[in-house]
This record gives sequence, C-alpha cells and structure tokens, in this order.
Amino acid sequence: MNDKSVYLDNAAATRLDERVLEAMSPYFFQTYAVATSEFAYSQGIEAKEALDGARGRLAGLLGVTPEEFIFTSGDTESSNIALKGVAKALGKSKGRHIITSRIEDFPVLQSAKALEKDGFSVTYLGVDGEGFVDLDQLEEAITGETILVSVQHSNQEIGTVQDIEAISKICRSRNTLFHCDATHSFRRLPIDLSRVPIDLLTVSAHTIHGPKGIGGLVVRKGTTLGKLMDGGFQEFDRRPGLENIPGAIGFARAAELVDEAENDRLRAMRDHAIWRILNEIPSVTLNGSPVDRLPQNVNVSFHFVEGESITLHLDMRGFAVSTGSACFSRSLQGSHVIYGIGGDHERAHGSIRLSLGRYNTLEEVDAAVTALAEVTRELRKISPLGK
Amino acid sequence: MNDKSVYLDNAAATRLDERVLEAMSPYFFQTYAVATSEFAYSQGIEAKEALDGARGRLAGLLGVTPEEFIFTSGDTESSNIALKGVAKALGKSKGRHIITSRIEDFPVLQSAKALEKDGFSVTYLGVDGEGFVDLDQLEEAITGETILVSVQHSNQEIGTVQDIEAISKICRSRNTLFHCDATHSFRRLPIDLSRVPIDLLTVSAHTIHGPKGIGGLVVRKGTTLGKLMDGGFQEFDRRPGLENIPGAIGFARAAELVDEAENDRLRAMRDHAIWRILNEIPSVTLNGSPVDRLPQNVNVSFHFVEGESITLHLDMRGFAVSTGSACFSRSLQGSHVIYGIGGDHERAHGSIRLSLGRYNTLEEVDAAVTALAEVTRELRKISPLGK
Repeated sequence: MNDKSVYLDNAAATRLDERVLEAMSPYFFQTYAVATSEFAYSQGIEAKEALDGARGRLAGLLGVTPEEFIFTSGDTESSNIALKGVAKALGKSKGRHIITSRIEDFPVLQSAKALEKDGFSVTYLGVDGEGFVDLDQLEEAITGETILVSVQHSNQEIGTVQDIEAISKICRSRNTLFHCDATHSFRRLPIDLSRVPIDLLTVSAHTIHGPKGIGGLVVRKGTTLGKLMDGGFQEFDRRPGLENIPGAIGFARAAELVDEAENDRLRAMRDHAIWRILNEIPSVTLNGSPVDRLPQNVNVSFHFVEGESITLHLDMRGFAVSTGSACFSRSLQGSHVIYGIGGDHERAHGSIRLSLGRYNTLEEVDAAVTALAEVTRELRKISPLGK
Repeated sequence: MNDKSVYLDNAAATRLDERVLEAMSPYFFQTYAVATSEFAYSQGIEAKEALDGARGRLAGLLGVTPEEFIFTSGDTESSNIALKGVAKALGKSKGRHIITSRIEDFPVLQSAKALEKDGFSVTYLGVDGEGFVDLDQLEEAITGETILVSVQHSNQEIGTVQDIEAISKICRSRNTLFHCDATHSFRRLPIDLSRVPIDLLTVSAHTIHGPKGIGGLVVRKGTTLGKLMDGGFQEFDRRPGLENIPGAIGFARAAELVDEAENDRLRAMRDHAIWRILNEIPSVTLNGSPVDRLPQNVNVSFHFVEGESITLHLDMRGFAVSTGSACFSRSLQGSHVIYGIGGDHERAHGSIRLSLGRYNTLEEVDAAVTALAEVTRELRKISPLGK
C-alpha cells in the first residue's frame, strides 16, 4: 500500500472522525449496561437514557419524534426492513404491488427482486438522461394494489437528487406508503420530515464519518410494518438485538458534526473538479445532474478507455477512486445506473466516481484531476477502443 | 448513578477490553477502504485482507474454514439467518418441521414462533430440572419432514451446557441440519467443529469484551441457506451490507484474548459464589446444573422474596445484577427458562443471575454475596409471601 494514498471514493466518508470515537468511548468502558436493564438497576437507566438521547438527537435532525427513529445495523438492513416489512404487513390485505426505480442502490433493488420471487409484482420506473424519475410515470404506475413506493433521495453513483417532496405528495395523495433511501444524502442535503410526508427513511452513519455497523430507519407513526428479525422487544419492538449504544452515540455525534459550511466546501471542490475535468480532458461526459447533485459526488465517463484501467493507474499514482458501485465492483459488470440513464456499454464501463469527504483537500482534488488527465491521455494512446 | 457500582450481570462481559479498541483503531483512521474495492485500488486489497484475516482467526478458533464463517450484526441476526434461512431453503422441498427447546434465547424462540405463523410446525422440546434436553425425546421428534434442529450450547440464564456433541450426532444420523446458539459459550467452553458436526453456529463479540454490533454465523460447507437480507454480494453472498471491518478485527482480537486461565478463574469465582449463597442464605435453590455450567454463570432462586426487589436493593448498595433475561426484563414476566425447568411462579420471580466477566474480582463477588445475604434477610422480614 502507498501510505500517502488519497481516498477519493466512497471510503473517504467512512474515515471515522476522532471526535466521534471520543464521544463513544465512555460507552465502551464506563456506561456499558444493557439498555433493557433499565428496570433492574441504575446503570441500566443511564444506558437507556444515552440510547434515547442519541435517538432523540438524530430524530430531531430529521424532523421526527424519537419514537419514529429506530437503530439498525446499517442502510442495508434499514431498506430490507422497509421493503420486506411493508410487504409482510400489507401483502395479504392491501395488495402486492411495489414501485421503485431502476437506479436504486442494491439493498432496495435486490429486496424488490426478492419480493418478486415471493409473488409480489414490482414496477421499476425508468429515469431520464440525468437520472430523474418521471413523476407522471410514477402517478400512472400507482394502482389500488400498490403498497409501497421506494425511491432514493440521491443516487449512490451519479449523485442525482430526486424531488422527494413531489414524490411524497403523490404517494400521500394516492394513499401509498413512501420509503426513501437517504443513505448518501443524510446531513449532506436538507431533509425535513416534519414538512415532507415520507413514511420510511433509510440513513446510515458510515457516509458521514460515523462508525460502521450502525444505521437508522425512520418509521413514521401509524406505519404498519412487519418485522425482518425476531428476538427481544428492543427498538419499540421493531428491531431486536442487544442495543449498540456506542454505535448510536457515535452516529448522533457524526450527524451533528456535519454542517452547512462543510457541505458548501464539498460542493465547491466538486464543481471545481467537474469544471476542470470537462475542460481539460477531451471526450468526457458528466453523469448525473449538473445542478441537483450530492455535494460530495463527481461522476464522469471517459470515452475510448475502461474505468477499470483508470482506477488501476490512479492507484499507482496514489489516488483511490471507484468505478460503479462499491457493492458490485468485483463483478466487473457495467453500472446499472449508467445503463439506467441511457448510457451504452462504453459509457457504463468508462465511468469513474470521485466521492469527497471531510478529510479531502482542494489540493488533493486538483492533484487527482491532473493525474486523471495524464492517465486518460496515456491509456487512450494504447486503447483498442480507438479515440 | 453510583460510580462505584459493580456490574455483575450480562453487561459485565460487554465492557470493551482496551486492547480490543487498540486493535480496531487503525481501521477507523488509516485502513478504512471498502473491502469490496479490492479490485479497484490497493487499500481495498488491504481492507479485504484485514477482513479475511479476522475471519480466518475466528474460523480457526472454531475449527472451520474461513469460507464457513460470515460476519453479522450480532447473535440475533445470526440466529434469524439460521432459522429463517433454512426454512426458506428447505421449506418448499424437504419439509416444514423444526425442532428447538423451550428454554432457548429469544432470537431462536421468536424466530421459531414467527415461522409457525408462516405455516411451519415447531416442536419445543422440554428439559429436565437442570435444563437438559432429553436426547431420546429429540430422537423421537425428528421426522422425515424435519429440516432443522436448533438447540443452544449453553443457556443464557441458568448456564446449563447441553451435550451438543450427542445432539449433533443424532441430527447427522437422521440427516437433519443442526443449528447451535453458542452466544454465551463461545471461547468460554471448547467448541471444535472439526470434530463435532454442527451445520450452523451463532456467536457474538459482546459476550467476550468485544465490540457491540458484530457477531458471526458458521455455515458449514454444503449447507443450503436462504438469505434474510438482500443487497450486495458481501460475505460469500450470504449477508449483504458494508463490511464492519473495525468490528470484525475487534471480534477476532476479543476472541483471542480469552484463555483457559481466565475461564478457570471465572469458574472458581462462580463456585465460590454458589457455595457461599447456598450455605449462608436459607431457602435458596440453585438453578441449572451444578456441573455442566457456563464458567461465568450463577443463577439462584430465593423463596419468599421477589427477584425485582432484590435487584433494586442491591442496586442501592452498588451491585448491578439481573433477573431473568436481559431482553425481556422490562416485561416483568417470569422467566420462561425457570418455568421450563419446572419452576413455579415464586421460583421464576425470585431468580437472580450473576454473570461474571474479566473485570470482576473475587473481592467484588464476595461483597455482592454478603450484600445478597443481607438484602434477602431484610426483604424476608417484610415479605408478604411469608417465610
């Protein structure tokens, strides 16, 4: 490993903030009681208060009540609970139809596919060239049998931000539950559920320099939801298992450490990188919206060259960037997101994503873009794809 | 909170060992790549190697290959995957009958109950007065429709250790999968799967001074298992979600830090406590086996007095102990385990569990027993239950 390597992929946001660990530390070594012991002894009360304090802080940031926020092991579990929980609760009464989009992240997409095998029907909404769901198409797709619409807030690869307020209103007016995967947008973009009627919302700590292994799911009051796992009564009887109190405390602290100034700084670095790439490198396409875009996301496709080759050459120069989705990078399949926005094989295989985090500097971003320009130039010289 | 309080309940084992945090630390701040990025850049390889290193060390301690050990968010998830995964895989082909015991912990028990609602039939084996499953009854219960036997290694409340070698052999001879919940025995008692044919085994880090939010499931080669969650391809496509590498590293380190000398020390403290309680306090019954017992477990029932009152009075004296199960302590229901071993209402409600960990001293245990003797004497003076 190159010790000076610069993380410019999804991992950039998973570097733990030292202040988060500091906040967690007392719950490793001093207050480590089991929260469900609250009726047995006083440390149990303290543990329960710590857990509920973290819950309340996160709920407050989202505009919901503490009782509407449950902790999970991460966004994968949260989205699984949302989709399968609604299917379980309403599949035998209201109907067996679910609507999602073609460019969702894998926890939603694969849960939907699993439900298809269980006899549910799923509509996969198409998106336009920038990745936006067509709201008219959504309206048309909803039937009396539709029990859930699951559309992400922002895309995991190309950063496109959906109009979730409009989607939520359509769902509300058609009496259909709405789940929104906000894994990548939580704290990077405003989300206020006191104003926007979203029934279920997935969030995670690992995208904001919080600990791995902890996430959350908003379940608005009155939402009927079956259980994915069975065991104890924890998390309002919605998610069993020993409470991960250090994780919950770390999640809340991480959420509070993100502020608008930081998001503005990321936005500026993002646009600087995009501007330089589009102007200094020939034959390149921006993937996703130039406007409604995650502050931390850059995604471009280079013609006449494979994304895999670019990442390897950038790695040798000390820059860690990604192609496609982190979940599936080993598969060498083209990105389903790039195909979803109408990209062809070349564009899907030539895409490169930079994800920016708190610890990235403009200097690093500049150096990465310069390296990117050199690497693509060199690779195109020897490319069998022509130029 | 009383800062000098002594944890003598399940929480005692959840205090993180400083050496575990030290082992995790590089994966918070230096090597925080996503393991599935292994094909994109060199930090991904390093992250993957760290994850697989932790996996290999844990697998080695259990006598299985690394490919047979998957990480989960904890024992609740592991047991849910085991029961529901087998049900999903074999419920439509081999049969819909499952066997478990009446005194299992809630993840197994409630998963079994959830499967009953889905049309599976479940046999709940009774246990004898010390908590042992009757092997003849098990043999008789297995039919051609039986797809899984799930019996715990040791009991979460009374510490009774089942003869899992004998159970595994019965299951093997009858061609039925065997899941064993080893949450409380992992590293406290020998478990060697290279010798004992157990198909699925649940373990967790939180019982051995490891981090919360990480557990494991052994899935022996050739075991057909459906998925509980859908998403990415992680953990050999058995458990999706961003890998919790710091958690995995912490789990492996915690497992290695337990040794026979420590288990012997716990055993000695346990027997010292039991001996003193039985000899110095009148009208008390030991729950569980006096011989085949978890090294860290003491469980006794006091006549003429409520366990809840004892815990509150001990709390005031600075000792944190539990009644019944941590998962259900808020319910004030009598322990299903004590009822399972034939205890009546009084015994179920008068039970107290001490759980010992690395940081407990003999001096603390002695002080707790002395306090217990005083508290029970005082409570019995005013008890409405008579004496």
